[in-house]
Amino acid sequence: MNEQNYPVYGEITGPIVMIGFGSIGRGTLPLIERHFKFDKSRMVVIEPRNDEAELLKKHGIRHIQAHVTKDNYKTLLKPLLTEGEGQGFCVNLSVDISSVDLMKLCRKHDVLYVDTVVEPWLGFYFDKGMDNSERTNYALRDTMRKEKARNPGGTTAVSTCGANPGMVSWLVKQALVNLSNEIGLKFDEPSQDDREGWAKLMKKAGVKGVHIAERDTQRTKHPKPLNVFWNTWSVEGFISEGLQPAELGWGTHEKWMPKNGKKFKKGHKSAIYLEQPGGNTRVRTWCPTPGPQYGFLVTHNESISIAEYFTVRDKDDAVTYRPTCHYAYHPSNDAILSLHEMFGNGGNAQPVQHVLDEDELVDGIDELGVLLYGHEKNAYWFGSRLSLDQARKLAPYQNATGLQVTSAVLAGMVWALENPKAGIVEADEMDYKRCLEVQTPYLGPVEGHYTDWTPLDGRPGLFPEDLDTSDPWQFRNVLVR
Amino acid sequence: MNEQNYPVYGEITGPIVMIGFGSIGRGTLPLIERHFKFDKSRMVVIEPRNDEAELLKKHGIRHIQAHVTKDNYKTLLKPLLTEGEGQGFCVNLSVDISSVDLMKLCRKHDVLYVDTVVEPWLGFYFDKGMDNSERTNYALRDTMRKEKARNPGGTTAVSTCGANPGMVSWLVKQALVNLSNEIGLKFDEPSQDDREGWAKLMKKAGVKGVHIAERDTQRTKHPKPLNVFWNTWSVEGFISEGLQPAELGWGTHEKWMPKNGKKFKKGHKSAIYLEQPGGNTRVRTWCPTPGPQYGFLVTHNESISIAEYFTVRDKDDAVTYRPTCHYAYHPSNDAILSLHEMFGNGGNAQPVQHVLDEDELVDGIDELGVLLYGHEKNAYWFGSRLSLDQARKLAPYQNATGLQVTSAVLAGMVWALENPKAGIVEADEMDYKRCLEVQTPYLGPVEGHYTDWTPLDGRPGLFPEDLDTSDPWQFRNVLVR
Ligand SMILES: NC(=O)c1ccc[n+]([C@@H]2O[C@H](COP(=O)([O-])OP(=O)(O)OC[C@H]3O[C@@H](n4cnc5c(N)ncnc54)[C@H](O)[C@@H]3O)[C@@H](O)[C@H]2O)c1
Ligand SMILES: NC(=O)c1ccc[n+]([C@@H]2O[C@H](COP(=O)([O-])OP(=O)(O)OC[C@H]3O[C@@H](n4cnc5c(N)ncnc54)[C@H](O)[C@@H]3O)[C@@H](O)[C@H]2O)c1
Repeated sequence: MNEQNYPVYGEITGPIVMIGFGSIGRGTLPLIERHFKFDKSRMVVIEPRNDEAELLKKHGIRHIQAHVTKDNYKTLLKPLLTEGEGQGFCVNLSVDISSVDLMKLCRKHDVLYVDTVVEPWLGFYFDKGMDNSERTNYALRDTMRKEKARNPGGTTAVSTCGANPGMVSWLVKQALVNLSNEIGLKFDEPSQDDREGWAKLMKKAGVKGVHIAERDTQRTKHPKPLNVFWNTWSVEGFISEGLQPAELGWGTHEKWMPKNGKKFKKGHKSAIYLEQPGGNTRVRTWCPTPGPQYGFLVTHNESISIAEYFTVRDKDDAVTYRPTCHYAYHPSNDAILSLHEMFGNGGNAQPVQHVLDEDELVDGIDELGVLLYGHEKNAYWFGSRLSLDQARKLAPYQNATGLQVTSAVLAGMVWALENPKAGIVEADEMDYKRCLEVQTPYLGPVEGHYTDWTPLDGRPGLFPEDLDTSDPWQFRNVLVR
Repeated sequence: MNEQNYPVYGEITGPIVMIGFGSIGRGTLPLIERHFKFDKSRMVVIEPRNDEAELLKKHGIRHIQAHVTKDNYKTLLKPLLTEGEGQGFCVNLSVDISSVDLMKLCRKHDVLYVDTVVEPWLGFYFDKGMDNSERTNYALRDTMRKEKARNPGGTTAVSTCGANPGMVSWLVKQALVNLSNEIGLKFDEPSQDDREGWAKLMKKAGVKGVHIAERDTQRTKHPKPLNVFWNTWSVEGFISEGLQPAELGWGTHEKWMPKNGKKFKKGHKSAIYLEQPGGNTRVRTWCPTPGPQYGFLVTHNESISIAEYFTVRDKDDAVTYRPTCHYAYHPSNDAILSLHEMFGNGGNAQPVQHVLDEDELVDGIDELGVLLYGHEKNAYWFGSRLSLDQARKLAPYQNATGLQVTSAVLAGMVWALENPKAGIVEADEMDYKRCLEVQTPYLGPVEGHYTDWTPLDGRPGLFPEDLDTSDPWQFRNVLVR
């Protein structure tokens, strides 16, 4: 791939409406320019802030400086989405706007849609009046699933198609295929639509669970000041999810649940949540660069969608297998310090919030993969190890974290254009090969690594611990207590 | 105080033997040169490493490159300590050398002695064969107390006379006097020897407990690399104490103890420990610059000595009052990251360990004080807010953290010279006014701050918590669980 030679994956024949022009919006713009045929004069970005007005001008993109709200979204967006000929595309990269409401509006008007998170309207995340079970991603995702059930098929709306949620669902399938080959399983690769086939393969491979195991080693030029939250992607997004309950897809091998763990009363019940904020909940995990490390058990859509996708049921619909699945996120060091500072101040967010761009960072990689564990080879990490340096060379306006996300948005858009009548879909339901094909040029080294490490390694050390020594990969051993 | 004008506090008439020339040794040397009359040709530094040989040469100080060990300490040290005329002074600023054995040797030969920690011989801190109760500072301090009881009086040996342990015991007294005046208590200030008087005053002032509340905001020029432990003072020392059990002086107002809390079976029983490493145990505390923050409940000698010192007993020797006392340490951000990395890797220390010197840091302050809490004015922080910048101007070879320690060593040495027959003493038993008088020129602003903050502030937030709402200052509310 070089400048002359970017593949154009298709044509967007109607208007493109991008909502939100933060770190991900900025990084997605050049990828859209590169990889689609479209009429630039018909693209618009809705972004309340004015910081990047110059950049939009430079790219010749119209800027509407406004907040999309529950009250104005229909009147504001409908004309923009449906203006002129062809099929429009809504690229939602904002915070605090209901994904489901946008999806509904878009599908009603035959406009393609993609987002990276099932986002609620402003206020949801910090609503003290709500029960914590309602502040979960389980609940948020259910709003999307219900809409899908009520209105199956129709215009494609790709839900939660960033790096994670998003790309990691494709990586899980590739990792499972690699692992199954490595351990010598006899199997035919299930087709895209064969959810049950995939779930059975996961069971057959003996996978007990999956960590979305990420280590961001990107480092800043200047040391973090006091009372500032720094992150390599949306600070607002990270704080919101960090203050949601810790939450995970709950596997059938688990024999123990923390005292403050809660089951859900409604729905598919493939997840549990803990009565504590994910951004202050640590788990033991593993990534290739650091080896063993702490990650934060921040709730994510994929924890639930992957666990549900790979669930095997018997004829009576009873669950016979499900993997545990959760995020185990070691963000950049500055974000670690920011979390420590925020929770040290009673969970009150810092007054200054800032996303570190590629020029403020000196080096490092975002190592984002899936750790399939509990099988006969113990554990297998498979993922992208994209460096800041590579990211800078591959595309403008983004750090390594951003590029992993924006290239997933690109893949989601390509897939939607190629499958315009697929209805509401999650990454798990898409063609993982096609998506990774589109995305891989932007991911740096995509590698698989086996490890002997387990969460029991070196334990107990100097202090007694509550362990399950009969099964290293029990959540009881993973959770830091 | 300017270069021409440093007060000379006394004469050291015999040899000076400094053991250990790490961050504290280096910083102490220029203060000794400034403030004592002594014969430079009779000073020697024993330090196994060769990194600072040039510096010693520049200062014209003899360097013996050797490890002091259990086997060689008598033969190595006795000739050095007793060589020639006058009274020698042993300044122990090393790690892994038994303080009590050194004290005994020094006192036997009428040599003055000072150290900054009750240090055991190499191997003690990580001995898996030992019970955790034996790995506490309670146990270490008891070895010193026993020696003191066995051999009362005699040549002065000042135990644990750094910033903390050390200076903070003087700050506690000054803070108590300030607070007592502020709340309008009628009292005569107890004399130096009137331990009971001090304890009664603490009780009368209504103080429930004391945090040694420290925030180090010193920041580095360059971001921390992977697999390196960075700290603003001894990394070895910090790791050792961070892997000891969390430990605290246990106040009479406490109504709750954590499940893994343990009482001691022998001795004065004024402390408890938790079956978890202090470096991975967080507490809620407060310092002037950040306001509310997390600190680590790392075990320290002063937690126990202060709680014991301020204990009131009735005629039957039953305890009627004791304050809770513990360290609540927010080290520099790089140390926070280093701890996170170390515990994320199963508590295995990083292969590279480095103390950040004043040239590697850009700015920041070490804000080290005592937070007297639970009285009618809620809480009062009193301490030193020394900046890196000030430290650089005040004395060479040290950052702000270092200078708070080395100036306490200086004060301890002055006091020993002025009181050469006081036996084994802790900072609590010394003349706090004289010591602070010597030390204050090196402490930057020494300030008192009242705060309304309590560990219950803003709680419970979004999640249910186990709280004692009847008394904000219960340890139950302070400990992060
Ligand atoms: N799935 C993934 O892998 C992944 C990764 C990163 C980010 N995300 C999500 O993508 C979204 C964007 O992330 P980011 O890093 O660009 O965040 P950002 O905080 O940098 O940008 C968000 C932008 O949305 C704008 N915005 C806020 N309210 C708005 C409103 N009412 N109407 C229109 N715009 C509004 C903000 O002004 C801001 O510029 C977030 O929801 C984030 O959680 C997903
Ligand atoms: N009370 C306080 O406030 C306070 C504060 C800081 C440090 N300290 C203590 O002071 C001591 C020195 O701290 P530092 O920051 O200079 O530590 P450091 O790690 O920088 O230096 C310690 C030095 O001791 C030397 N050493 C190790 N083993 C030795 C041996 N067997 N014989 C002789 N020397 C040996 C090391 O080579 C090193 O140079 C430590 O024990 C530390 O815990 C106390």
